[in-house]
Amino acid sequence: MRNITEHNITDAVIGRFENCADPRLKEVLTSLVRHLHGFVRETGLTEAEWMQGIEFLTATGHITDAKRQEFILLSDTLGVSMLTVAQNHSKPAGATEATVFGPFHVASAPCFDNGADISGGAPGAPLFVDCTIRGSDGAGVADATVDVWQCDQDGFYDVQYKDNDAHRARGVLHSDAHGRLRFRSVLPVAYPIPTDGPVGQLLVATGRHPWRPAHVHFKIQAPGFETLITHVFRAGDPYLDSDVVFGVRASLIADFVAHSAGTGPHAREIEGRYHTLAFAFVLQPG
Amino acid sequence: MRNITEHNITDAVIGRFENCADPRLKEVLTSLVRHLHGFVRETGLTEAEWMQGIEFLTATGHITDAKRQEFILLSDTLGVSMLTVAQNHSKPAGATEATVFGPFHVASAPCFDNGADISGGAPGAPLFVDCTIRGSDGAGVADATVDVWQCDQDGFYDVQYKDNDAHRARGVLHSDAHGRLRFRSVLPVAYPIPTDGPVGQLLVATGRHPWRPAHVHFKIQAPGFETLITHVFRAGDPYLDSDVVFGVRASLIADFVAHSAGTGPHAREIEGRYHTLAFAFVLQPG
Repeated sequence: MRNITEHNITDAVIGRFENCADPRLKEVLTSLVRHLHGFVRETGLTEAEWMQGIEFLTATGHITDAKRQEFILLSDTLGVSMLTVAQNHSKPAGATEATVFGPFHVASAPCFDNGADISGGAPGAPLFVDCTIRGSDGAGVADATVDVWQCDQDGFYDVQYKDNDAHRARGVLHSDAHGRLRFRSVLPVAYPIPTDGPVGQLLVATGRHPWRPAHVHFKIQAPGFETLITHVFRAGDPYLDSDVVFGVRASLIADFVAHSAGTGPHAREIEGRYHTLAFAFVLQPG
Repeated sequence: MRNITEHNITDAVIGRFENCADPRLKEVLTSLVRHLHGFVRETGLTEAEWMQGIEFLTATGHITDAKRQEFILLSDTLGVSMLTVAQNHSKPAGATEATVFGPFHVASAPCFDNGADISGGAPGAPLFVDCTIRGSDGAGVADATVDVWQCDQDGFYDVQYKDNDAHRARGVLHSDAHGRLRFRSVLPVAYPIPTDGPVGQLLVATGRHPWRPAHVHFKIQAPGFETLITHVFRAGDPYLDSDVVFGVRASLIADFVAHSAGTGPHAREIEGRYHTLAFAFVLQPG
């Protein structure tokens, strides 16, 4: 096709995929091109706006590194992540719902024994978590591999501290023979997603707040079950209805119960207030 | 909204733009979110595919620097650039058509006198360009600012050579009082766009060739006229019907006439073959 116009270009681009050996890639790219072109046409996108888009993506790429994933943050704040998660995990009633993975998971987090303190010195009020991991038949899932990660009392994940390479308030644990898992960490708080990059600028430009309600991330893997990536949110948080990444599900909200100083659940004396969280995860067969 | 699902999330995201003070930004983002979500739903995008997308964008950002713009290359190869150009420049009959800007323009190119050799030593057979710049009334446009950039005989732009900071085969010139502009450069050839990055990998994965037909880029600015960003393509090039960035318009194809060694158009003796190109640009009032 020699004479490309605004009217024939979409078919011209899609036609170029005719020799694509991977039918799924062809399907995905054909849909992507139709929707991208649809967006350009529907908005009458100008060349200056196109260049703003190029510069936005460039800045997003340049701020992304091994510790910061601004593209995930962008996908999260546009609801693309949660939509993808939701349509891939339409759970049967009773199974724990999934939510966004987020940009702060670390593959190399340290392993801990069941019952350990995973805080690593992260600042915050003590939190004692006591959860069960069961199949939909109610039987405990033994030896499930559970990744946990969360922010500290200042709303930061360990990877957000410059010059800190220590793992704090994250770890990998395994459920016991009855599917029970306990650990000590710190009380998470609501926090703003990083606002010093292009995604933060976009939130400001659109009049959106950058806050996420307080939560603890869990990734639970066990043979014979579908991997569950989810959060447990803290009941009463003011941002439960306006999570900047659209991750809240009502079924994932739980009480983080406050206790006065005294004998904690691990039979040790706790100075000052501490909190406890109990949660029952139900995995789907997979 | 507390309970986000795959069915209500698009409205939830768009609802977050309700306080956006810039109505055009709101319009553009609303359309973007509808189309992105439409793409995710239509394809039933999986989480693994979503992560491939995140990794693709990350790699695209990381290879982009001051000399290489992989996001523009991505936009070009998906036809997004040409669609944007085409819908913003539906020219009246007779006006020169626009095409893609491409990733190889340099803002700081050197200025040359009308008639100069802009090759800067770039390898290639001599090319003598003689063009006119007129308004739609036929009158020559005096003192138009004309950016020219092109590849050399090996298909590379100056900025693609590692450790080369010299400007070659690019420059800024001005038309004379009659709207005439002449310069010497080198004969451009068909070339593959850079294939050592994510965009090249995508072309391979989809069975597409990476070639652009031979061309010279022009950006022409003059007071009272719409800026024209275009190419002149070389007639007879085998890639005129399959330009990887969809930039060809039939009206932009011209003969690059081959001549035997002898007295060239600048009344100097040329050793070996040389080429001449004549082209008449017609600017729109703007």
